[in-house]
Amino acid sequence: MSRAELVSGMGRSTPDRIWVQGRDLCRDLLGKVSLSDMAWLEITGREPTPGESKVFDALLVVLVEHGMTPMAIATRLTYLGAPESLQAAVAAGLCGMGTTFAGTAEGAAKLLQEALRDAPAEADLAEMARGIVAERFARKAVVPGIGHPLHKPVDPRAPVLFALAEEHGIAGRHVALMQQVSRAAEASSGRSLPVNATGALGAIASDMGLDWRLCRGLAVIGRAVGLVGHIAEELRQPIAREVWLRVEEETARNAAKGEDEHG
Amino acid sequence: MSRAELVSGMGRSTPDRIWVQGRDLCRDLLGKVSLSDMAWLEITGREPTPGESKVFDALLVVLVEHGMTPMAIATRLTYLGAPESLQAAVAAGLCGMGTTFAGTAEGAAKLLQEALRDAPAEADLAEMARGIVAERFARKAVVPGIGHPLHKPVDPRAPVLFALAEEHGIAGRHVALMQQVSRAAEASSGRSLPVNATGALGAIASDMGLDWRLCRGLAVIGRAVGLVGHIAEELRQPIAREVWLRVEEETARNAAKGEDEHG
Amino acid sequence: MSRAELVSGMGRSTPDRIWVQGRDLCRDLLGKVSLSDMAWLEITGREPTPGESKVFDALLVVLVEHGMTPMAIATRLTYLGAPESLQAAVAAGLCGMGTTFAGTAEGAAKLLQEALRDAPAEADLAEMARGIVAERFARKAVVPGIGHPLHKPVDPRAPVLFALAEEHGIAGRHVALMQQVSRAAEASSGRSLPVNATGALGAIASDMGLDWRLCRGLAVIGRAVGLVGHIAEELRQPIAREVWLRVEEETARNAAKGEDEHG
Amino acid sequence: MSRAELVSGMGRSTPDRIWVQGRDLCRDLLGKVSLSDMAWLEITGREPTPGESKVFDALLVVLVEHGMTPMAIATRLTYLGAPESLQAAVAAGLCGMGTTFAGTAEGAAKLLQEALRDAPAEADLAEMARGIVAERFARKAVVPGIGHPLHKPVDPRAPVLFALAEEHGIAGRHVALMQQVSRAAEASSGRSLPVNATGALGAIASDMGLDWRLCRGLAVIGRAVGLVGHIAEELRQPIAREVWLRVEEETARNAAKGEDEHG
Repeated sequence: MSRAELVSGMGRSTPDRIWVQGRDLCRDLLGKVSLSDMAWLEITGREPTPGESKVFDALLVVLVEHGMTPMAIATRLTYLGAPESLQAAVAAGLCGMGTTFAGTAEGAAKLLQEALRDAPAEADLAEMARGIVAERFARKAVVPGIGHPLHKPVDPRAPVLFALAEEHGIAGRHVALMQQVSRAAEASSGRSLPVNATGALGAIASDMGLDWRLCRGLAVIGRAVGLVGHIAEELRQPIAREVWLRVEEETARNAAKGEDEHG
Repeated sequence: MSRAELVSGMGRSTPDRIWVQGRDLCRDLLGKVSLSDMAWLEITGREPTPGESKVFDALLVVLVEHGMTPMAIATRLTYLGAPESLQAAVAAGLCGMGTTFAGTAEGAAKLLQEALRDAPAEADLAEMARGIVAERFARKAVVPGIGHPLHKPVDPRAPVLFALAEEHGIAGRHVALMQQVSRAAEASSGRSLPVNATGALGAIASDMGLDWRLCRGLAVIGRAVGLVGHIAEELRQPIAREVWLRVEEETARNAAKGEDEHG
Repeated sequence: MSRAELVSGMGRSTPDRIWVQGRDLCRDLLGKVSLSDMAWLEITGREPTPGESKVFDALLVVLVEHGMTPMAIATRLTYLGAPESLQAAVAAGLCGMGTTFAGTAEGAAKLLQEALRDAPAEADLAEMARGIVAERFARKAVVPGIGHPLHKPVDPRAPVLFALAEEHGIAGRHVALMQQVSRAAEASSGRSLPVNATGALGAIASDMGLDWRLCRGLAVIGRAVGLVGHIAEELRQPIAREVWLRVEEETARNAAKGEDEHG
Repeated sequence: MSRAELVSGMGRSTPDRIWVQGRDLCRDLLGKVSLSDMAWLEITGREPTPGESKVFDALLVVLVEHGMTPMAIATRLTYLGAPESLQAAVAAGLCGMGTTFAGTAEGAAKLLQEALRDAPAEADLAEMARGIVAERFARKAVVPGIGHPLHKPVDPRAPVLFALAEEHGIAGRHVALMQQVSRAAEASSGRSLPVNATGALGAIASDMGLDWRLCRGLAVIGRAVGLVGHIAEELRQPIAREVWLRVEEETARNAAKGEDEHG
């Protein structure tokens, strides 16, 4: 049976060399490129320009740490149960990076990329944004990339990211449209709905030419770093056992009470 | 009931600020620190020195990519089944970073740290290494951090990492002991058993003061970057479906044959 | 600050007893209820009727094994890398149970439950099905629960499940609507689009009163069983290393060729 | 290059049939075998005897539910973040089934199987147990399968499992040795160290002929059922958000206090 060949340019090894994206890892990369440039190379297959390097680094850094998130707690609880598998504890935390939290970078980037894919250069972005918002609001759908339950009236990460993208010549139509979407949503709803960190990330990544399906990957890289950090602190100053015991104790107490009353 | 307080210095948020390790993320870190410096800050709670920064970056970069590993294939197969959950595909790949592959950084660091914890400054490392190797060989145990099935006679990553650690004043007794362990194992076995990439990583991380239980975490961070890269390539140039169909077809053909013969 | 109480009836322990759903595990359940009845009890909080017991068991059994799926291969590759963490190998496989494969039980159940939630008893299901299909086809959306790339013209699992649901008095409006959806889709497209295994699962689970958001959970339970089975076979008769080496070799060979031609 | 063939007897499909372990799923299994018998068939490749069926079912049921464990909390937190990926929430919970908790079934089974592999039929199990305990205590190692932090003086699950294994003619030398190990450890330490649930599971599974490396798999199957149950309750009566907010609030409050004092 005739089959497709398996083709990949990611890397390969010979006894004395490791090739990564066509480069010699030990001669060309190790000690010469940063982790974030390496990430760009892995994702795009080429080295970043200096501007891309700077902005991409910020996109990876911005989601590393957001305190005691559900992901961080899940990682710590998993590490408590399986300290021999640090990798599985990080994996467990990453599994929670879905639509509720930072996964929304993907939704924002998809929205922007689909809107601009076939749009002429002279398209009116403010009008386009009003259309997007009206359509979403009409079917009671969420507009990804705007608003934040805590960071009000402004998510402080977004302006910093936008300023960096501007400074390094990255900001383009996707960033502009994201900002217009925020304005249109605020005008239509009368509420404060600024671009949030994942909206900024999705918009800037789009202006850098990254497929929207990969935007969540930037959040995943950043958060993997943060979750290893949480394990480091858990080793020095553990909280997982205490969290577990409190939850177990309170639910057991309430259950016992319920059984007394009804039983 | 009196309970321990939950204490963490990782981060916290107020409406207008995000604190990370006591720093203001937006003012002090974003656009100013690299992803790898951020990783160091998360793990140790302080900024790296210039030398630590350089060497730690290399430790994170070295394991990003090693071609079509079992982890990379598992990530691609998982993404095929659940493209809506990129994070779970990376998580699935990370779950395979155990004792067989890069997880060995942990074993090497543990060996070195336990050996040197109470060792006097004037301890003879060559003798110590011979003792370690003899004890392991006697009970037919693996000596972590040396030898590689493919990279012979030398794992080309180790000398580059050691040179960087030397250049930046990081290399100390753990690196020296790791190299002596390799020599002792080669002398005792008569085989080529050079320090491998995870052995170098474990030794250098130990000289940087990192707990051996965190060394696998460096591999996890690096590999998370690489696995996102594999998903990026899978989007452009997929192989997961073909791998699946080939395996399914061959096992089904062999099973049908077996049933014909025996049934 | 006033907070919600943490309440759960799943289980709790005292030194001499383990309570599960208000029952004494050791006195009332262990040795007396089957794994599948236990699953029903855990999910619904009550014991199943004899008919529910029989049908629910079949819903859990049907997806246990489907040969060398991407999930099974991912589990085996992960076990190769981390044999000390069997649980993480099963977890890795489960991560792939998304929208592409068995996760579609969820979509089918959602479709049926939303359509019938407010429908009057005398609603014409054939007409309802034509509306559902027309709306989905118009926006080029997939109709979940029908069609199968391999099992044509009929997915042999669906009629067996439907017969069981009929025999035990479970089959109701959701099953009837699922079958009408298949008919309407076949009439509209002119193609063979029979109800598939996940469509039958979603419809029957809906007639049993299960929330559509839990239907994927039945597939997860069944597949967890199957993935442990794959690890058992991998121990006796391994294939993961061979799959890895073939993929690595072929991609490396093709990459080397490409570099020769272009380099 | 000559390569090993890929061989598997797990299952395969033709357009009108699904073969599982050489049986026709739809004709021979669906509606006829229970989930637990299916699990036995998947793991061993043959149907269980009536006694094996009964005892194996109990081994799978016993670990389904143990209240608000770290695994259950991790699953609920992950589901909060990624409700679209129920499978990843179960996977996250399973990742925590390591050496600290139920993963110990593996350790107990390994101990027993290695001790009895080459032991003559007339070996004195009490003496063997004293040797095992003495050797472990001497190097301050844990003896797996005995003792429980909460269930004292007896883990109530163990006697029920042992009685079932006895009743169905399964209990043999592994069970006897496990009980002797408990007695020897109690005599040597002067503390109450009864066989616990995972010890009983490991011993009985060993007497059923299962490889010790698969014993953790039984716990994984049982717990997968329980974790789907926890998601079902989370849908009706959520606690994950409240757990998260409490932990976040308390750590943030303590961090702010610390910064005030020191800053």
